[in-house]
Amino acid sequence: MDREKIRALLELVAAGDVAPDAAMHRFADLPFSDQGGFARVDTHRAVRLGLPEVIYGSGKRPEQVVTIARTLLGRGQRVLVTRVPEETAEAVRDGIPGATWHEVARCITALPDPPPAAKEPTGNILIVTAGTSDIPVAEEARVTAASFDNKVEALHDVGVSGIHRILGERKRLLEARVLIVVAGMEGALASVVGGLVPRPVIAVPTSVGYGASFGGVAALLAMLNSCAAGVSVVNIDNGFGAAYAATMINRLGEL
Amino acid sequence: MDREKIRALLELVAAGDVAPDAAMHRFADLPFSDQGGFARVDTHRAVRLGLPEVIYGSGKRPEQVVTIARTLLGRGQRVLVTRVPEETAEAVRDGIPGATWHEVARCITALPDPPPAAKEPTGNILIVTAGTSDIPVAEEARVTAASFDNKVEALHDVGVSGIHRILGERKRLLEARVLIVVAGMEGALASVVGGLVPRPVIAVPTSVGYGASFGGVAALLAMLNSCAAGVSVVNIDNGFGAAYAATMINRLGEL
Amino acid sequence: MDREKIRALLELVAAGDVAPDAAMHRFADLPFSDQGGFARVDTHRAVRLGLPEVIYGSGKRPEQVVTIARTLLGRGQRVLVTRVPEETAEAVRDGIPGATWHEVARCITALPDPPPAAKEPTGNILIVTAGTSDIPVAEEARVTAASFDNKVEALHDVGVSGIHRILGERKRLLEARVLIVVAGMEGALASVVGGLVPRPVIAVPTSVGYGASFGGVAALLAMLNSCAAGVSVVNIDNGFGAAYAATMINRLGEL
Amino acid sequence: MDREKIRALLELVAAGDVAPDAAMHRFADLPFSDQGGFARVDTHRAVRLGLPEVIYGSGKRPEQVVTIARTLLGRGQRVLVTRVPEETAEAVRDGIPGATWHEVARCITALPDPPPAAKEPTGNILIVTAGTSDIPVAEEARVTAASFDNKVEALHDVGVSGIHRILGERKRLLEARVLIVVAGMEGALASVVGGLVPRPVIAVPTSVGYGASFGGVAALLAMLNSCAAGVSVVNIDNGFGAAYAATMINRLGEL
Amino acid sequence: MDREKIRALLELVAAGDVAPDAAMHRFADLPFSDQGGFARVDTHRAVRLGLPEVIYGSGKRPEQVVTIARTLLGRGQRVLVTRVPEETAEAVRDGIPGATWHEVARCITALPDPPPAAKEPTGNILIVTAGTSDIPVAEEARVTAASFDNKVEALHDVGVSGIHRILGERKRLLEARVLIVVAGMEGALASVVGGLVPRPVIAVPTSVGYGASFGGVAALLAMLNSCAAGVSVVNIDNGFGAAYAATMINRLGEL
Amino acid sequence: MDREKIRALLELVAAGDVAPDAAMHRFADLPFSDQGGFARVDTHRAVRLGLPEVIYGSGKRPEQVVTIARTLLGRGQRVLVTRVPEETAEAVRDGIPGATWHEVARCITALPDPPPAAKEPTGNILIVTAGTSDIPVAEEARVTAASFDNKVEALHDVGVSGIHRILGERKRLLEARVLIVVAGMEGALASVVGGLVPRPVIAVPTSVGYGASFGGVAALLAMLNSCAAGVSVVNIDNGFGAAYAATMINRLGEL
Amino acid sequence: MDREKIRALLELVAAGDVAPDAAMHRFADLPFSDQGGFARVDTHRAVRLGLPEVIYGSGKRPEQVVTIARTLLGRGQRVLVTRVPEETAEAVRDGIPGATWHEVARCITALPDPPPAAKEPTGNILIVTAGTSDIPVAEEARVTAASFDNKVEALHDVGVSGIHRILGERKRLLEARVLIVVAGMEGALASVVGGLVPRPVIAVPTSVGYGASFGGVAALLAMLNSCAAGVSVVNIDNGFGAAYAATMINRLGEL
Amino acid sequence: MDREKIRALLELVAAGDVAPDAAMHRFADLPFSDQGGFARVDTHRAVRLGLPEVIYGSGKRPEQVVTIARTLLGRGQRVLVTRVPEETAEAVRDGIPGATWHEVARCITALPDPPPAAKEPTGNILIVTAGTSDIPVAEEARVTAASFDNKVEALHDVGVSGIHRILGERKRLLEARVLIVVAGMEGALASVVGGLVPRPVIAVPTSVGYGASFGGVAALLAMLNSCAAGVSVVNIDNGFGAAYAATMINRLGEL
Repeated sequence: MDREKIRALLELVAAGDVAPDAAMHRFADLPFSDQGGFARVDTHRAVRLGLPEVIYGSGKRPEQVVTIARTLLGRGQRVLVTRVPEETAEAVRDGIPGATWHEVARCITALPDPPPAAKEPTGNILIVTAGTSDIPVAEEARVTAASFDNKVEALHDVGVSGIHRILGERKRLLEARVLIVVAGMEGALASVVGGLVPRPVIAVPTSVGYGASFGGVAALLAMLNSCAAGVSVVNIDNGFGAAYAATMINRLGEL
Repeated sequence: MDREKIRALLELVAAGDVAPDAAMHRFADLPFSDQGGFARVDTHRAVRLGLPEVIYGSGKRPEQVVTIARTLLGRGQRVLVTRVPEETAEAVRDGIPGATWHEVARCITALPDPPPAAKEPTGNILIVTAGTSDIPVAEEARVTAASFDNKVEALHDVGVSGIHRILGERKRLLEARVLIVVAGMEGALASVVGGLVPRPVIAVPTSVGYGASFGGVAALLAMLNSCAAGVSVVNIDNGFGAAYAATMINRLGEL
Repeated sequence: MDREKIRALLELVAAGDVAPDAAMHRFADLPFSDQGGFARVDTHRAVRLGLPEVIYGSGKRPEQVVTIARTLLGRGQRVLVTRVPEETAEAVRDGIPGATWHEVARCITALPDPPPAAKEPTGNILIVTAGTSDIPVAEEARVTAASFDNKVEALHDVGVSGIHRILGERKRLLEARVLIVVAGMEGALASVVGGLVPRPVIAVPTSVGYGASFGGVAALLAMLNSCAAGVSVVNIDNGFGAAYAATMINRLGEL
Repeated sequence: MDREKIRALLELVAAGDVAPDAAMHRFADLPFSDQGGFARVDTHRAVRLGLPEVIYGSGKRPEQVVTIARTLLGRGQRVLVTRVPEETAEAVRDGIPGATWHEVARCITALPDPPPAAKEPTGNILIVTAGTSDIPVAEEARVTAASFDNKVEALHDVGVSGIHRILGERKRLLEARVLIVVAGMEGALASVVGGLVPRPVIAVPTSVGYGASFGGVAALLAMLNSCAAGVSVVNIDNGFGAAYAATMINRLGEL
Repeated sequence: MDREKIRALLELVAAGDVAPDAAMHRFADLPFSDQGGFARVDTHRAVRLGLPEVIYGSGKRPEQVVTIARTLLGRGQRVLVTRVPEETAEAVRDGIPGATWHEVARCITALPDPPPAAKEPTGNILIVTAGTSDIPVAEEARVTAASFDNKVEALHDVGVSGIHRILGERKRLLEARVLIVVAGMEGALASVVGGLVPRPVIAVPTSVGYGASFGGVAALLAMLNSCAAGVSVVNIDNGFGAAYAATMINRLGEL
Repeated sequence: MDREKIRALLELVAAGDVAPDAAMHRFADLPFSDQGGFARVDTHRAVRLGLPEVIYGSGKRPEQVVTIARTLLGRGQRVLVTRVPEETAEAVRDGIPGATWHEVARCITALPDPPPAAKEPTGNILIVTAGTSDIPVAEEARVTAASFDNKVEALHDVGVSGIHRILGERKRLLEARVLIVVAGMEGALASVVGGLVPRPVIAVPTSVGYGASFGGVAALLAMLNSCAAGVSVVNIDNGFGAAYAATMINRLGEL
Repeated sequence: MDREKIRALLELVAAGDVAPDAAMHRFADLPFSDQGGFARVDTHRAVRLGLPEVIYGSGKRPEQVVTIARTLLGRGQRVLVTRVPEETAEAVRDGIPGATWHEVARCITALPDPPPAAKEPTGNILIVTAGTSDIPVAEEARVTAASFDNKVEALHDVGVSGIHRILGERKRLLEARVLIVVAGMEGALASVVGGLVPRPVIAVPTSVGYGASFGGVAALLAMLNSCAAGVSVVNIDNGFGAAYAATMINRLGEL
Repeated sequence: MDREKIRALLELVAAGDVAPDAAMHRFADLPFSDQGGFARVDTHRAVRLGLPEVIYGSGKRPEQVVTIARTLLGRGQRVLVTRVPEETAEAVRDGIPGATWHEVARCITALPDPPPAAKEPTGNILIVTAGTSDIPVAEEARVTAASFDNKVEALHDVGVSGIHRILGERKRLLEARVLIVVAGMEGALASVVGGLVPRPVIAVPTSVGYGASFGGVAALLAMLNSCAAGVSVVNIDNGFGAAYAATMINRLGEL
């Protein structure tokens, strides 16, 4: 539509109906007004990558989530809802035709009808957790990464207090294109994994712990100070963000 | 320059030398490429308000500051340098023709030659300090506000431990259009002033204090939690920012 | 009343019934005793500006709020109750004749009977939010600002991750006399808006976010460190305070 | 009892039944064993001052509190229970004969049967609060101070945003022997009161506030950094501790 | 002077030269303007108690301190300068006739010529330190308290890691009217002393320590959470403030 | 199994069926693949010490805990479940044959059927608490230490505000091989105990307290800064960890 | 060497000189003893990627750095020294033959003699800074990335207060394979860039700022809470780490 | 001496010169006065263990350290001075006859003349460091432990980013009786070592790192949250305290 406005103006200029100077003034504001309209869509990198729309479920009422999801599905888009509170999950899932509730990940996914042509998952992304309590965050990452058409695997409960658990899986670590390390408490797993593989490592601190873990701060600081060079970090419990970053990276391997 | 590019393109369209469709493609990127050039200037609100250029002196070497200042003066612009380290102040002042060194404020100001026509200072802005140790920050605010063509006054050492000092000056408080309250330690003065005047109050916490003042954090938190509604706050020791905000507000009184 | 006491005393002196010296002693304590009484009213800037009385609803029981509100209405004053807990909102609204419950803002407003003559809203104040989760805080600001007879508009969901959303609205930004920017998470919107408009910008950090947002601290720090000069900040989630400060500023434009 | 052991040993020595050297060895450990027993009682300063026993109610089950209280009453001692959770208050009060529930202070007091001879309250202690939300903490202080036989008064809602409220009560401030200032938010009242009176001021920060008040930390820091010399501070919401300290001070006036 | 203005006005009223109504208007502002002038002096509690003037030396240049001190001495007042930086101490002392430099306390004291009549020190205040590194803060308290005409004693190096050191001095603890406990590191001494004596205890955390002492924060928090009821706390390293508070308390024993 | 693979490979080499060079390549990855399998068990120090398996109950559903516990019991291992939420304790206990619920410690213990031969408890470990509110953490330590075959005793409510309580028990302190000091609020008990005994002291800060105790941070910092050399510290409320460390130490006395 | 030991053992087995069972026992410990030796080299991912050795210069004396650098060069390896203090830079550079001192980056690089065959730089990595004060950190990243054989470009001073500066460079942003955003103060640039490009973004908070920037914490928190999904973060001022992570990512584009 | 007083008193009682009752009164205060004198020595656990006297050198002037050291040597005691500032080390060493300066550890040790009979070092204590920058703290621990007659070894630069470095040394880890793990940055080494050995592990966080290491806080939190049960922690950079605790533990192995 906005493109049409620009084209129309140019055609008026071409036709001599609008003088260049007069057109000049209208263009001055373009980037901030009309053009802004189509740009708004253009610059959403998720859209550009063909990723499904993501709805952040926390703090939204079930009917709000359902409405947004249905609108997106109506446009033929896939849907991913993250951080769905357990108490409203059923209501949301039932309101969206064909929706799947991923209980541990607290996510809901849905495909439009008819579904888009299946894409071959690419890459692979390996998600590694320190302990079983970290699995919900890892699952948020896994469901997100899978929704974004990545090939994704998980390796659970390989924390450093039993160092051979992770060493015994070195082969799988080396096969990954990008790794997501999910750990709470002291977050040491990121440093160990970072030292073992010549691949990008994204660390996700979790709020698993108590007392001086301060809701994930201990793990967050540990990961930011990792002695393994090049580990980068996302927010506490942010499995979604880690998967998003991993997707960006994983796709580079396909270029 | 960029405006010229746009105008040139429009004239080519008007002349029939470029088809609207071809022009269309070039415009699509305009807001992010060429147009960006002139917009860069256009959107600096300081320039729009006719304010002098401000150079943040901290961390810059004397010769860097001198070079920037001379360039600006060469374009006929007034110059304000803030946070000039005491040890390089002389070198900077001597390098800029006609520069003035404001020792307490740690600022340098300079006028181009010939100087711009003198503007009548507007407003007034009243700067209030709790103690004598807060004066350097207040002076940064005063020199900045004066450079921005505000009428500005100061009222020092009226902290709340001797509450009558501030009460005795209520008339001056009420005459101000906008007030800047500068206080360290427990920062209580902002709440008292905020309760006395029906005018915008900008609070500047200072790093004056020791121990549990944590370099100004105590005063900052006090001001953010002021029981006097509507006090707004800038960064610790940010006399410049307070004066900038006060200028924006003061000018509204002239509209 | 207190004024009457002073006048009475002066008349006794004029009549020769009280000697100047005796009167002298009574006056010495006046500012702290009797005169204090009328001063208490006189110095409330809200009253001086003709603003409605504001009741902070949090931590008060419904019947307490109702009693205060009815007393104020009985005196012919308008009433604004902020931070009304959702669970007591109905009880409060039903207890105050003609009260309106603003659900998203969690505010209640009420007019006395007969209502005061309608005032023409002045200004305008523009409230800008980064995301939809910031809207409750923005609504608290909007309801407050409207209660204070400001003309007020809102622009929602223009966070910086899709920068063209805010750029596309530059015209509306430039039309405002004062802007309130409401943002959680990393609070970057305040810096972008601050750089676009030559007007006072009041930033409100919100507690929207999780993990290392620390209940709004991340946004608060970002706003205090804004690279756009002159942005001033109020407490986390303090929509009311931002509106109060904006009112003070907006009225300057009417002087 | 332990005194008796020492006496018995000394008498055995006097009688020649125990040699000095043998007695010597038994004494070596005395301060850490037997003597410790009576010392344990002796060194409780509350007991020495004739104060009632204080039971900290938080985290204790109703039956535990009742048992302790009854034991103390059985010994003829007065009882003060602080921090009684509202939900168990009735059960506790009903379990203790003649107990009084102080709802706002969340305290329970009880006298033994027969009650001790009434003491003339001494002093006076003046409790000053910034806002009505601070009253529960002030009431904990008031009930405690009254239980400790102090004459105690309160002055509420005299926060500094309306500075004349406190100035108008200067006479009452000056009549107090020791003052307790209770304030949340920015805690500025302590500095103002501290500057007005030549008496000891104990400041109690409260957790009243939100956002950057951080549960009372803002007020705590403000009070520790008070520009009024000699204000001393107790823990956040610690009305009991302030009253205890004030009692120690107030009694000095009786020496 | 201000009193004179009031008296003059009253006499004009008495003489019929000024009508009560006209006088009324002039009085309305009195508490905040003229009367404020004499009140300013009246409300300084230090002056009212006959205490010497205190100059905070930190951040002041030697010549500034000298000038203020000479002015005070010229008015016949005693002088106490605290926080004198070691590098300027000599210059300050030499600039003030008859000044004494207290090296460990980093204080300077001076008497006017002729000196005021000697007062009998009252009280006593006992200053207790945990370790030898805490002595400079204790000395600031001791010099201050002595300047304020208190009888003051000190008991050093009785920290709790060798608990018998403090227990062996119980008699001296019990003889004090008010105690100042100065401790860094974990600050436990305040709790132990607070449990031994039925007297007011003022705790001064010091910045002695390293690592997780965070410049005195560990000791500060320990003291605020003291299990000995009624310990009150001043800012980190604030020996002056503790002595000021102790003076207020000590004087109650003389009433 | 993995051992079998290695043995099989070696036998092939011995038989001449695999050349040393070829075997060489297979061994290169051994530590990270197959061998990792048995190593995983080998390196768990709990198993090596013959300790029971410990299940962290927090965040696990009752049926998960029951399943793990039954599996362990089925292998003839003893079971300790810590941090069992009160609301699921009954369900867990009932699901595990012969399980014991330790209410105050919030732990469940169970023996396999038939139970292992009883071991003589060694050592002893003495657990010392400051106040009755610290007992739940102390009980977690006691149940853990007892499960680990230590002789363990407890000494409660000997906080430093009544210093003779701990001094009167010096004999018991001196008889312990290792001490665990459990304290909240200001955590001073660790320093006093650390100064009294020539034995390892493990300090456990508890979250007992309010306001500036910050959920145990005050006690944690105090213990880290203990003036008694050699006190070491575990996480807030970590009774289990303290008992585990004490077990390691206590066993050294048996070597 | 270790490989040789294994081979020797295998040959003894093949020769029948060592029985498989006896060999078995020696292998059990291999991963932790001998094999560990060669593994130590094997698992350094930097070496595996053919990256130069990196020496962290901070806290090392010039002669230490020189010695390490010469040893590496002697082995034919390239050298990168980061965080070289300005005062020792000359000594270090002069001690290493053919070394280059990168003043702004505070890095030293050196090639062995003869230099390795030149590699074609791959990628590209785009480094974007908010302000000129962020350039030293950006330069550390640029020198590191260049040393690691990446094609690397920089775009400076495009902070969000003048939003068109970054928008005008969108083309260059879109051409990068991975982006490093370097920003201090409020760190908002990371969110804006993250929203503009469908590529991995690594954010580096810098310690540029004062007061409530808390040495880079404000920017760090902002970046961790970025509203642009998938931005990952490294430590404050860690240009080296960002470049290392970007190298890992950039190389994926070459697979 | 104090013992003599008691004995003398007992003999007077035995002789009938002092009545038991009169003696009784004198004894009542004994534990806190006279007996305190000898107890003070008795309760110093360092003395009881025959450890050398330790002087904390930081903040003391050279002549103070020399005086204390000479006094101790004069009594035939060994001396250990920790935290000697590099700039005063030479002066201190030269002032103490036969003193040794341990440069990296920043410690000075000295033996009396004649030296005490050599003791056979016991144990062993193994000190493990993550990186070379942690060595100064490790050296403080090593010199301290050696001074305390422990057999002590060190294993440097085995941080977890190259995990095989520590695994390759597992045999040495297993031979230690108690381990001290010294690590800065993310402090992960403590968890890995804690998982490998069935022995007490004392973790020492160091201030090695920058940015979000916050002077050692990141490592401290990591160690407090170690997933390897039973790791206990001392203050940041507290090598001395770790060695002291290890000594206590190591000696248990000798009982």
